[in-house]
Amino acid sequence: MSSTLSTLVNHQLRLASRPVGLAKADNWQFTEEPVAEPGDGGVLVKTLVLSLDPAMRGWMNEGKSYIAPVGIGEVMRAGGVGRVIASKSPDFAVGDIVSGLLGAQEYWASPSGKPAGRALEKIDLKLGTATQWLNVLGMPGMTAYFGLMDIGQPKAGETVVVSGAAGAVGQTVGQLAKLKGCRVVGIAGGTAKCDWVVKELGFDACIDYKGGSVREGLKQHCPKGVDIYFDNVGGEILDQVLAKLAPKARIIVCGAISQYNNTTPVKGPANYLSLLVNRARMEGMVVFDYTARFPQAIAEMSADLKNGRMKSKEDVVEGGIAAFPATLNKLFAGENFGKLVLRVAAD
Amino acid sequence: MSSTLSTLVNHQLRLASRPVGLAKADNWQFTEEPVAEPGDGGVLVKTLVLSLDPAMRGWMNEGKSYIAPVGIGEVMRAGGVGRVIASKSPDFAVGDIVSGLLGAQEYWASPSGKPAGRALEKIDLKLGTATQWLNVLGMPGMTAYFGLMDIGQPKAGETVVVSGAAGAVGQTVGQLAKLKGCRVVGIAGGTAKCDWVVKELGFDACIDYKGGSVREGLKQHCPKGVDIYFDNVGGEILDQVLAKLAPKARIIVCGAISQYNNTTPVKGPANYLSLLVNRARMEGMVVFDYTARFPQAIAEMSADLKNGRMKSKEDVVEGGIAAFPATLNKLFAGENFGKLVLRVAAD
Repeated sequence: MSSTLSTLVNHQLRLASRPVGLAKADNWQFTEEPVAEPGDGGVLVKTLVLSLDPAMRGWMNEGKSYIAPVGIGEVMRAGGVGRVIASKSPDFAVGDIVSGLLGAQEYWASPSGKPAGRALEKIDLKLGTATQWLNVLGMPGMTAYFGLMDIGQPKAGETVVVSGAAGAVGQTVGQLAKLKGCRVVGIAGGTAKCDWVVKELGFDACIDYKGGSVREGLKQHCPKGVDIYFDNVGGEILDQVLAKLAPKARIIVCGAISQYNNTTPVKGPANYLSLLVNRARMEGMVVFDYTARFPQAIAEMSADLKNGRMKSKEDVVEGGIAAFPATLNKLFAGENFGKLVLRVAAD
Repeated sequence: MSSTLSTLVNHQLRLASRPVGLAKADNWQFTEEPVAEPGDGGVLVKTLVLSLDPAMRGWMNEGKSYIAPVGIGEVMRAGGVGRVIASKSPDFAVGDIVSGLLGAQEYWASPSGKPAGRALEKIDLKLGTATQWLNVLGMPGMTAYFGLMDIGQPKAGETVVVSGAAGAVGQTVGQLAKLKGCRVVGIAGGTAKCDWVVKELGFDACIDYKGGSVREGLKQHCPKGVDIYFDNVGGEILDQVLAKLAPKARIIVCGAISQYNNTTPVKGPANYLSLLVNRARMEGMVVFDYTARFPQAIAEMSADLKNGRMKSKEDVVEGGIAAFPATLNKLFAGENFGKLVLRVAAD
């Protein structure tokens, strides 16, 4: 095995400088390194697919957040699914499929002296495909599940609005809310996405923010007001939903993709006093707080994928690690349709 | 009695037009009416003291809120304490002291055909003075109590920040939080108010927003971050506190006095994504939701006023009903020190 490994080159994408606004070419640095034999307890993983997430833009900024920023010169942080190609760990065998923060690179080696088991989870492709493990069965799905269930606490008959409805988190939020007996209204950009969430996923309605007024759409589709708003976008759409809250409404602050590339300060929600008038609540969530409960949620959603009660869509970009920067910007342009994934290697 | 009543004139303050920004003289109309004998089941009340509240500015605007706006030509809505001077109600006797929405006028008559008991509460001056019944034992005190206890859920050792700290709601919030074993940091305008909440009310610290940087003050006095923020002011101060939240923080959205006279849109909290990072929650409250529990809170706070565990301060403006417009604007200038009250009649 070691003779094969020594011929491998690991192509990597590192953060060269902190972006202002959208990341540009000079914020990135491509590097290559030889691939090393794993040390005692370690493994070597070949990256198959990487997840592209809105949160990545925040990781590229300096300053305190729920997770440390990516350092200048470091390989860009990215979650992914890969295959173990060498192992000196009792927990992993060659051929195992694993998920973890593999980074924007072709090979991931466990840090020397640290057991690989802390960084990786073995995944079962019988429960879902590799890309589903980055979608419904991965962080977006877990975010949707615990954000909606724990923070939102949906009740049958309530009206649930979700932005980024055809995106990774939004598609699952809406389907889970339908399974709970809620009226579900999505907000997405373009008729293709809107048609898909209504016709394929069973949302009751979808507002095309690129094709018309969100305000009018909410008025039409949420006649009794909005009981739960799962916010992935922030900005003007958040303000429009705030203006339509029902009494005792809950807003899950999951993200604000419209604001992440701002070069001016974040647009705060001018209508936030609607929280007061409606005795409503706006609450943040970070999916890593719920790791202990992931297995139960994964089992439930995997079963629903198999029995057809739930669907998933991934937008898989082919192109290898070199396509990472352009693929990330596609996310912020709202051009992805479904969970955005980069295929780094075919197998 | 009727011969006496017929000589009385009721001077009233009515809303002539909706203000833009601070209310000006031409937004008000002074009127006078003869005082009428109460009908069957009705009472006539002489206004003693009226409460001046930040919420009044919102009541003067058109549009949906938690309560209907004051109509053009209507007597301005105002809570107050008065004395029953005529009664055909089995529930009230002449001489009873009552509180209710008496309005900005010298006499309040119960609407014909409606029992007075729906609109008035008999109050007991043994539990507190008439002005304390507009303060700690009235709406501001109830707002402080249920906002802090129910929404904030303070735990001993937590850091509680309250803005408008020397105002009606703030003074009680801080004292209740101290009784719960919290570290309490006020925010108020001017050294006199700050000294008072620290030296007289026992707050741990107070940040003078007129005399220095709120950001620096929070850094100094909240080294472990802010667990609970009771917000009476909104605007820039809310943003500064958002930047200092502790994990799982709770923000009680009680008011936003800095924004009520805006002629531009409300300044939304640009730092609201701190809710996400800190898994924090921001929740609105309206005191009228808690009326069923007022008696218990009043009993508790009245006992604390008597045994010295709690203090109260009212800023009583003498000057009768004609002084109402100027007194209201004093509130928005932050010039009141303690709960702002207008004395309409001496007895």
